[in-house]
Amino acid sequence: MISCSCKLTNTDLEHGIQSIARAARHASRQLAKLSNAQRNRALRAVAAQIRAGVGDVISANAEDLAAAERNGLSAAMVDRLRLDEARLEKVAAAVEEVADLPDLLGSVVSETVRPNGLLVQRVRIPLGVVGIVYESRPNVTSDAAALCLKAGNACVLRGGSEAFRSNQALGKRIAAGIEQAGLPPACVQVVPSTDRDAVKLLLQQADDIDVIIPRGGEGLIRFVTETSRIPVIKHYKGVCHVFIDRAADRDMALEVSLNAKAQRVGVCNAAETILVHRDAANEIVPALCRRLAEAGVEIRGDERVRELGGSAVVAATEDDWHAEYLALIVAMRVVDDLEQAIEHIERYGSDHTEAIITADETAAERFLRECNSSTVVVNASTRFADGGELGLGAEIGVSTTKLHAYGPMGAEGLTTTKFVVRGTGQVRE
Amino acid sequence: MISCSCKLTNTDLEHGIQSIARAARHASRQLAKLSNAQRNRALRAVAAQIRAGVGDVISANAEDLAAAERNGLSAAMVDRLRLDEARLEKVAAAVEEVADLPDLLGSVVSETVRPNGLLVQRVRIPLGVVGIVYESRPNVTSDAAALCLKAGNACVLRGGSEAFRSNQALGKRIAAGIEQAGLPPACVQVVPSTDRDAVKLLLQQADDIDVIIPRGGEGLIRFVTETSRIPVIKHYKGVCHVFIDRAADRDMALEVSLNAKAQRVGVCNAAETILVHRDAANEIVPALCRRLAEAGVEIRGDERVRELGGSAVVAATEDDWHAEYLALIVAMRVVDDLEQAIEHIERYGSDHTEAIITADETAAERFLRECNSSTVVVNASTRFADGGELGLGAEIGVSTTKLHAYGPMGAEGLTTTKFVVRGTGQVRE
Repeated sequence: MISCSCKLTNTDLEHGIQSIARAARHASRQLAKLSNAQRNRALRAVAAQIRAGVGDVISANAEDLAAAERNGLSAAMVDRLRLDEARLEKVAAAVEEVADLPDLLGSVVSETVRPNGLLVQRVRIPLGVVGIVYESRPNVTSDAAALCLKAGNACVLRGGSEAFRSNQALGKRIAAGIEQAGLPPACVQVVPSTDRDAVKLLLQQADDIDVIIPRGGEGLIRFVTETSRIPVIKHYKGVCHVFIDRAADRDMALEVSLNAKAQRVGVCNAAETILVHRDAANEIVPALCRRLAEAGVEIRGDERVRELGGSAVVAATEDDWHAEYLALIVAMRVVDDLEQAIEHIERYGSDHTEAIITADETAAERFLRECNSSTVVVNASTRFADGGELGLGAEIGVSTTKLHAYGPMGAEGLTTTKFVVRGTGQVRE
Repeated sequence: MISCSCKLTNTDLEHGIQSIARAARHASRQLAKLSNAQRNRALRAVAAQIRAGVGDVISANAEDLAAAERNGLSAAMVDRLRLDEARLEKVAAAVEEVADLPDLLGSVVSETVRPNGLLVQRVRIPLGVVGIVYESRPNVTSDAAALCLKAGNACVLRGGSEAFRSNQALGKRIAAGIEQAGLPPACVQVVPSTDRDAVKLLLQQADDIDVIIPRGGEGLIRFVTETSRIPVIKHYKGVCHVFIDRAADRDMALEVSLNAKAQRVGVCNAAETILVHRDAANEIVPALCRRLAEAGVEIRGDERVRELGGSAVVAATEDDWHAEYLALIVAMRVVDDLEQAIEHIERYGSDHTEAIITADETAAERFLRECNSSTVVVNASTRFADGGELGLGAEIGVSTTKLHAYGPMGAEGLTTTKFVVRGTGQVRE
């Protein structure tokens, strides 16, 4: 096991990562045998330890914050990094909420009796060992650990270097809770190294890690996808669209567009492009541009939008249709019809979330059917593409990989199924 | 599009593979809009075209067979390669059986209404474009194409060079059926090149191919896993175990073990290792060794098996516990208890299929629960780990990847789900 955050020799690092992965595999086998009650006890102990350790975590976080300011991180980044008592209470409460989720393991997903009398069931089981590579807020450490534990998985967590001390401090509280509940400590391991080679090595442990979930910017996702020997569930960018159909209710179109774009801009389910049906453009575009401009949103439009939206609109380039701004900027285009809207989304979208605003049921159903993004919405904000909002209870993120889990991914996405077959001596002819 | 099987320049090959992948993506979007009836019409037309083209396919196959004999392929390999009228009739009938399977697309997998009134559904949709890289019998070409079509996916098929002409001939019949039914011809494409670089290039088309399914030997699977930028569902080896518990019925233990090992040896769900509880060893091992030897099976045993099994048993080495023989050879070991049997399977198994023979329900349930291979069986042969036998209708193979599809993988494994959200103007607070 690696024991410090300093730069290690390559061999030490390699051994360290290998033993972390192997310990996780071993722990996952013990974990798979435990009951839901035992796992929940551990989650509640983790929450209690986080509450008891608020002082430690906050002082570790203060060191991260000081380093962030020295390194000139943006105010937004520093704010994301910050943990205070109120935020840590939310972190602890989130772990308890995961304990309250229904148990998935052992549930029978399907059952048939074959003509030869074999009883065939598909039964839900843990994935095994989950590796999570992230560069976001420190609360991902406890959220991910809690969801993995709930689903019976061991996990190996590798957060960003800017949150290193906070993640280590949270990791210690999690470990204390787990041990207190009698679970193997290697159920949750926070990699104690900021070395980028540690990630590379982690991605090679295909015998001991079953899936890698990267969460973060494009650079991280690309690096993980290209380097990993382990299956990856990508949580990639969200170039989300709102399409205002010809039959849209004007007020609803304005409210939903504004909410989708501006209610919170730094998140993957915020809208980045608004498409307006040409028959609705005269009525919608001027008012929408006014409302967006009032909210401080910069508008980049095609020619028609510039004609209708006035001086607030700058000219969009091809890059704007591809952009995930994560900022108070929106791209806007007038399209000929529903078909052109869907084509635009297919061409420029990222399979994340798309919404249509319309009172026309045929148009709505066609949009929902033909648009194969992971979440498709009629008459509501794209901001609902979130595990909590869609009823999954909590989420590990939003997958834009079609395999295994597509869209908001909760505890169920951290499980798989096996075939269980009961016979009375059947052999194959 | 590549138009011949000769060695092409790298640039030509690259363009060729790119345009195949792009055409597949385009076709998949059209295909996703079609109804089950339209897809089924295409499947029936494909079956009819295969029947009408028997002569063409058999003469292409004869060329492959002649080349195989010139190249000194084993009799077993040549037999697998051979197509005759009877086998082609089965190939055509298998395509019709896929048409008869229930439609999966559009089905609502779950549905909830959120407190804010949003109706949230998960709806089954196609994966998109499936790439299959295989080196087995030519019937994989039509089986895979049919299952992909049924599930609304376009597919790109790359078979082994030994079956190149047979696969091309079958591909022509499939294309004829598809066109006759009015579907886009790029729904099913058989890569017209035996160049290994074509596979490498195919594995880079991450924008246009959603999943790669490799079927074949260890070398192929390893190459694909290490090279692919596209998510891979591995169909890896089957080191399957039969564990004969202390409470096993003697006759059942003998019949099931014999069937699992020797009914057909060249398949991934055949047993490779038999574990016997020490309390049953005296009763079982001598009789089992006799029966296996009579069936022509070579037995490689640990010390206890050699004591009990007599001269028919040779000494097993560490390699034998890892071996996927795919031949008339079996490894056999006496274990102390159920726990040691499970430990042995965890250490040496390949997550494929394991069976326990026992009359003790507690032991059976513990084995089924603690053994997390993709198929776990009590009192029946491992040979039932097959999509058809377990009621999936038809299979694309047996996945040993835990993500997405674990175990026998049918049409459902070729689909995913999206979130469909219907609102009345909801925005997020």
